[in-house]
Amino acid sequence: SVNPDLASERQTASFSVEKLTAWLDGGVECTRMRRAVVDAIESDPVFSRENQYFQSQNERYEAAVRKAVHLQRKMREMGWTENGPEFKYIYRAVSGDVAFLLHRVFMRSISVLGSDKQIAKWIPLATQYQLIGSYAQTELGHGTYIQGLETTAVYDTTTQEFILNTPKISAMKWWPGDMGRSSTHTVAFAQLYIHGKCYGVHPFIVQIRSLRDHSLCPGIIAGDIGPKMSFEHADNGFLMLQNVRVPRENMLSNFCEVQPDGTYTRRGSEQINYLTMTTVRIALISDEVLVALMKACTIAIRYSVVRRQSKLKPGEEEAKILDYQTQQEKLLPQLAAAYAFHTTNDYLQKLFDKSYSEIQKNNLEVLPELHALSSGFKAVITQHCTSAVEICLRACGGHGYSLLSGLPSLYTKILASCIYEGENTILLLQTARFLIKCFMAARAGQPVPPSVTYLATEKLGKCPARNKLDFLSPDIYTEAYQHTAIRLTSSAAAKLQDLVQSGAKKHDAWNQCTVQLVQAAKAHCHYITVKNFTETVEKLEPRAGIQKIMKHLCDLFALHGIISNAGVFLHDGYISGAQMDMVTASYLDLLPVIRKDAVPLVDAFDFTDKSLNSALGSYDGQVYQRLYEWAQKSPTNKQGNPAYERYLKPLLHNTLSKL
Amino acid sequence: SVNPDLASERQTASFSVEKLTAWLDGGVECTRMRRAVVDAIESDPVFSRENQYFQSQNERYEAAVRKAVHLQRKMREMGWTENGPEFKYIYRAVSGDVAFLLHRVFMRSISVLGSDKQIAKWIPLATQYQLIGSYAQTELGHGTYIQGLETTAVYDTTTQEFILNTPKISAMKWWPGDMGRSSTHTVAFAQLYIHGKCYGVHPFIVQIRSLRDHSLCPGIIAGDIGPKMSFEHADNGFLMLQNVRVPRENMLSNFCEVQPDGTYTRRGSEQINYLTMTTVRIALISDEVLVALMKACTIAIRYSVVRRQSKLKPGEEEAKILDYQTQQEKLLPQLAAAYAFHTTNDYLQKLFDKSYSEIQKNNLEVLPELHALSSGFKAVITQHCTSAVEICLRACGGHGYSLLSGLPSLYTKILASCIYEGENTILLLQTARFLIKCFMAARAGQPVPPSVTYLATEKLGKCPARNKLDFLSPDIYTEAYQHTAIRLTSSAAAKLQDLVQSGAKKHDAWNQCTVQLVQAAKAHCHYITVKNFTETVEKLEPRAGIQKIMKHLCDLFALHGIISNAGVFLHDGYISGAQMDMVTASYLDLLPVIRKDAVPLVDAFDFTDKSLNSALGSYDGQVYQRLYEWAQKSPTNKQGNPAYERYLKPLLHNTLSKL
Repeated sequence: SVNPDLASERQTASFSVEKLTAWLDGGVECTRMRRAVVDAIESDPVFSRENQYFQSQNERYEAAVRKAVHLQRKMREMGWTENGPEFKYIYRAVSGDVAFLLHRVFMRSISVLGSDKQIAKWIPLATQYQLIGSYAQTELGHGTYIQGLETTAVYDTTTQEFILNTPKISAMKWWPGDMGRSSTHTVAFAQLYIHGKCYGVHPFIVQIRSLRDHSLCPGIIAGDIGPKMSFEHADNGFLMLQNVRVPRENMLSNFCEVQPDGTYTRRGSEQINYLTMTTVRIALISDEVLVALMKACTIAIRYSVVRRQSKLKPGEEEAKILDYQTQQEKLLPQLAAAYAFHTTNDYLQKLFDKSYSEIQKNNLEVLPELHALSSGFKAVITQHCTSAVEICLRACGGHGYSLLSGLPSLYTKILASCIYEGENTILLLQTARFLIKCFMAARAGQPVPPSVTYLATEKLGKCPARNKLDFLSPDIYTEAYQHTAIRLTSSAAAKLQDLVQSGAKKHDAWNQCTVQLVQAAKAHCHYITVKNFTETVEKLEPRAGIQKIMKHLCDLFALHGIISNAGVFLHDGYISGAQMDMVTASYLDLLPVIRKDAVPLVDAFDFTDKSLNSALGSYDGQVYQRLYEWAQKSPTNKQGNPAYERYLKPLLHNTLSKL
Repeated sequence: SVNPDLASERQTASFSVEKLTAWLDGGVECTRMRRAVVDAIESDPVFSRENQYFQSQNERYEAAVRKAVHLQRKMREMGWTENGPEFKYIYRAVSGDVAFLLHRVFMRSISVLGSDKQIAKWIPLATQYQLIGSYAQTELGHGTYIQGLETTAVYDTTTQEFILNTPKISAMKWWPGDMGRSSTHTVAFAQLYIHGKCYGVHPFIVQIRSLRDHSLCPGIIAGDIGPKMSFEHADNGFLMLQNVRVPRENMLSNFCEVQPDGTYTRRGSEQINYLTMTTVRIALISDEVLVALMKACTIAIRYSVVRRQSKLKPGEEEAKILDYQTQQEKLLPQLAAAYAFHTTNDYLQKLFDKSYSEIQKNNLEVLPELHALSSGFKAVITQHCTSAVEICLRACGGHGYSLLSGLPSLYTKILASCIYEGENTILLLQTARFLIKCFMAARAGQPVPPSVTYLATEKLGKCPARNKLDFLSPDIYTEAYQHTAIRLTSSAAAKLQDLVQSGAKKHDAWNQCTVQLVQAAKAHCHYITVKNFTETVEKLEPRAGIQKIMKHLCDLFALHGIISNAGVFLHDGYISGAQMDMVTASYLDLLPVIRKDAVPLVDAFDFTDKSLNSALGSYDGQVYQRLYEWAQKSPTNKQGNPAYERYLKPLLHNTLSKL
């Protein structure tokens, strides 16, 4: 039975939860299909995550491999294919704990970087799992700066082979997923040397384990890198190469080739490679980051209407903690952010689709904008959502800190997204470089991509809002965001120019401006998010109450952003102190309004109890009962007390001296 | 041998590291004693933490009990006592992973809450470990709000016993440390009922496990609450009581007593109880929070001069990442915060000592200020340091995410400090209540405690700084902090009054102001921190270079705080936009200055490699070598691959269909 404190929250929804779910999914049909996939996966015991919080790294790894292997069968059984419409729901349904994700990256890199002949040879082997692939790029000493990789591949004309080596310890491959214990082959990146000359980093297919008995191949030292904050199920690995020879044909040669005699030829543009990174970063936002935040909001908000603590009014019963202003202030902006970034994700997806069809027509001009936006948003959204999940965790007090709440694993996993697929600060600086370039071009009257045309406008002005209600006007706050994005970009550009004009070298000047450049890049992404959210809300059907509640969330997101970055808006007086008080007043007024719909708003994310895997967040709100039931399953309660006979008993029985 | 990239950093220190260490310790003699204790502990293999990152919850628990038991022997051996000068260094030396910490809380609560007779009976038993105690206050349904506890203790006049019960699941004791598997006795808090009347929450000594065989006593259901984000070594427990009878003498009766016939008598003031909470919160700051931040800074800063990535200048070798402005901007403010809060900790310790001697003279007037400051600082410092440790972790990129870096365990542990010993938001609201009260009194010309006399001053004014160098004047920035603390307190008070005057009930008005009240409490603590840091720096000897570098850190801390909360300072124009640019300029100028001394500044914290337990942070900077060595010790590399025979082999050998 549903806890009455949670049930009552569902009776007063101002909108249709089912319709909001369909909107989030992109249509009723998508919702139906997603639920069918989730149901098929969750009803299969192999995919159960019931004991996940009690498992060791070894157990988690074994389960992830079991699930990955079983998934192949399941897909055949269900008639799902990698290109079918169901595929995108599978990852969400298994909740990420599955092996062989890098096998797909192995295949994709061959498809993009390999020649037709290489594709014809390797892709069928990989598709049929006659080998297991991984992707060995990162080294102990090098991450995002790929040019610095130290692994070497020296071409030997006599045998027509490449000799791969790890010349020093920092050159060891480190972190590649699926490589520590599973994969038989990998795409290894190495500095290519021919006749003593270095040609830069190239990809090579290297077999690392025997296909017969899985033992390491000659010259290969490989293993698992050990425990991490999360991803216990993944065998992130290390790889040392000692005079490992691979045939000439194993260098992926869509863009460049080494002839038998060592002649090096290059063809086509490698720019298209950016497209792969872009795809991965955009997929990451929807598959890893948004899902994690939506789950965290679901757990924290449901718990906050079940948890009663202290009294709001003397003499009354204890209040639901969500009725406290401070709790609303913690959680509701995170809920608004989940919806805001959902619309940003749609925006990025559409931009990608549009750009992709241009690229198909050989128009590569769209790439810089796509790259800048996907880099910037990867950084901004992972960072924002990581903080948001942490806030959700802390807002649940002690119980949020228990693994059984599900929040710690969401947090430790989303935290990694700030680091992998490009370190966030470096990504933001790439966005900033694009912004500065476009800013200069725009001010010189040259054409710039659509997302940055606004940089051409030069308005000083003041915010025209006169009372707190004015700040519920999307024009007012969007304009404010635009203003600050322009101001920060323009002042970073001015500082750069000043430094260069006073004699600083370009790279020195750049380094001295990086803190402000990062700020400008963030402001740009923040502005696009707010603008896009408001435009999305305007286009919504006013029926079914959805537009109204989305408008509230959009307002809250925008105003919360202004308050959180108040200094940026107040700096040049665009918003005055008195106006900032209006922003605060409107913001605080919105909290109790959205609070009424908080539970329906998280219900609409439509996570099953199994996918939440949280004692605090289940649909029925039986929080305390479930914490107790789950705790009893802990291995700490099952295997007797290892410390009693050895330590506690001698201590208590005063035989300590005999120890 | 020391990595030359780290060695070179130590050759240019602008001050004497050894002298700074002595200052941090409070004198040369303290440093000597601390090192002796650390050495004695670390040279004893029982206290080794070598395999900690690979251990299960069960293994961690067993190790913690082993260490706790061994520590008793060690102390006898070394001649250390609980009241001796060495005692305070022991906890730091064992790095926290030790059981029976709650045994001391059990003893302290009996000492404070028990009668002389009770103390005479129980303290010797506990001292000799003829029992193991714990402290059972928190329940599944209640944490900080103690009045809401649901466990009951009904007095039975016929047998002169209390009958303890867990009337519903939310009343189950949940979280108490040392209770899940170790303790034999506990101080349980329960609502006292006599003849059907409730007298509120009282403490009872309850035996929960047999002293003979450690089995649960009749009517007791107890166990471990399962996995948490950290504290794997601690057996946080649950406890259900079913008609458990304890004799009348087991109610701790220093402040109130139940006569045999059920007559309830109260004596003395319980206010003194606050002192215990205060002690714990202040100890927490130095023992748990500051140490964690100092360790995180040591690891991240040493790693950042060893890690080279990308190029600052074309054609040169790759740069140390600490030479990038963005990396300095991440780490150096955290280093400054570690020093700032070190001085705050001294301030709190002195305040406590002074208050304590007043209280000994029966002057309880000092309690409210002490309580307000210890609550507020507990919240502000735990929150600030938790974020700071997270920044250090993220600043180390992928390797920071490995448990072997030591950073994840520092982070997950310090995060808990935001929750236990009082939830931070609630603590800040207690500080705010004190502030509002004092503000009203001060404005009415009444006397207020020393830390809040500044609230009486009513200055509007503007910041007098004219150029960026003016912002390196402590008077200028301290004044700015004071101004904002007054403004935020005064405007929260005004809003409260307005609401009440327009007819809102007091508790409603309070709830509607809580977001702003929290902000005022934070500003107050921030102001005191800055003021106290500047005063401490002024008093330092100018010799040995320490005063100079501390002045830089103090400036950096203060300016970083202004930039991070720019909105608060710009709001009423006290600082103008142009002045904020000066703050930013001065702040950015300080970064490369402090960067030069960054390694000596963390060396001065004087952590041994064993206590850091970090592959990234060791004194010799052999980062990559150590990561590789440690990874090889992981159980994932030692027990064969459990997934190969079962899943990988059938998959690769195409026998999948037979699975």
